[in-house]
Amino acid sequence: MGRWEPNARDRLAQAAMTLFQENGYDRTTVEEIAARAGLTERTFFRYFADKKEVLFGGSEALHERIVTCIADTPPGTAPLDAVAAALESMTPFFKDRRDHARARQSLLAVHAELRERELIKLASLASASAAALRKRGVTEPAASLAGEAGIAVFKVAFERWLEDPKAQDLSRHIQLGLDELRAVTARTGPGAPAEPPRKPAKTASARKP
Amino acid sequence: MGRWEPNARDRLAQAAMTLFQENGYDRTTVEEIAARAGLTERTFFRYFADKKEVLFGGSEALHERIVTCIADTPPGTAPLDAVAAALESMTPFFKDRRDHARARQSLLAVHAELRERELIKLASLASASAAALRKRGVTEPAASLAGEAGIAVFKVAFERWLEDPKAQDLSRHIQLGLDELRAVTARTGPGAPAEPPRKPAKTASARKP
Repeated sequence: MGRWEPNARDRLAQAAMTLFQENGYDRTTVEEIAARAGLTERTFFRYFADKKEVLFGGSEALHERIVTCIADTPPGTAPLDAVAAALESMTPFFKDRRDHARARQSLLAVHAELRERELIKLASLASASAAALRKRGVTEPAASLAGEAGIAVFKVAFERWLEDPKAQDLSRHIQLGLDELRAVTARTGPGAPAEPPRKPAKTASARKP
Repeated sequence: MGRWEPNARDRLAQAAMTLFQENGYDRTTVEEIAARAGLTERTFFRYFADKKEVLFGGSEALHERIVTCIADTPPGTAPLDAVAAALESMTPFFKDRRDHARARQSLLAVHAELRERELIKLASLASASAAALRKRGVTEPAASLAGEAGIAVFKVAFERWLEDPKAQDLSRHIQLGLDELRAVTARTGPGAPAEPPRKPAKTASARKP
């Protein structure tokens, strides 16, 4: 049914983002998105359930890819390294989409319901990663912690990648995040080296009345 | 306005949970909750914006407490230890509420909109923890990673606490989670020791036709 439209998904996503930026997310309709992309509403609904989904459309594929990638890491790979490798494998997908991802992030910043959807997506990625690790024989709570920690690194790395003036690769930011997480956790516990001294807090002046 | 009702908040929360279990979350009304607690609807709305809020009512206080607790940890405390200490400080609050917390978790398992609210609460705790660490002079991305990692540990620890047949303290599970996260991150990177060998996957039998 309906003829095949080349790159329909990408065209719709780009048209939607342009309209969200021009007219605001709330004031943009599916009809307008389809028209801007030179497609029909019917075609829109073949790819997306609603307007919100345009911003989360690739998430099932991403999900699938991460699970497969964890399953495929060589035996003996540490659980968190397996999750990190899976997340790094998304770098080519995001490579030419930094402007799009930034525009998307700006929308998330002002629309609570979009942030909610993003959080659900990330939480479900963490659970799926943990499940993929359990299939490799990783026990609990290591599997869940590696899944959650991996997604925490990704979340922080993704934001830093969007803001990076040097535009380094997403995979570089994931590696930096992993290094930093390792440093953050190594510093914990009774034998941990002390932090640099705390900056004195601004306090009200102690003048006597 | 309205006379003061002793423990009104707790009475409403308990009445709500009883009704949610008896009649289901969707079929329970605010009117019924107030009646079961021996209070008026007006009193209900003095404490909670809506039915959903009964399950998330303590979250602002919790939020406040965690931020204060991070600010108050001794100078030189490692960032993740500061977050963990703040999360452990909630143990007395949850101590006699395990049954309630379990009933709540069962509701979350079947109601997506409640899970969403929970995720938002946890994400905002991670951000608030990171902000409290930055105030102590912790730089980025260490502050965000410690905030996210701390909440990841809490999330996993909380679920394990709910299921623990030995009913050990929540703080014990937080400590175990932190130890495990340390082990999980220490195992990463090029020099990481290998995982135990992977269990052979079940494969279709290789019989020749």
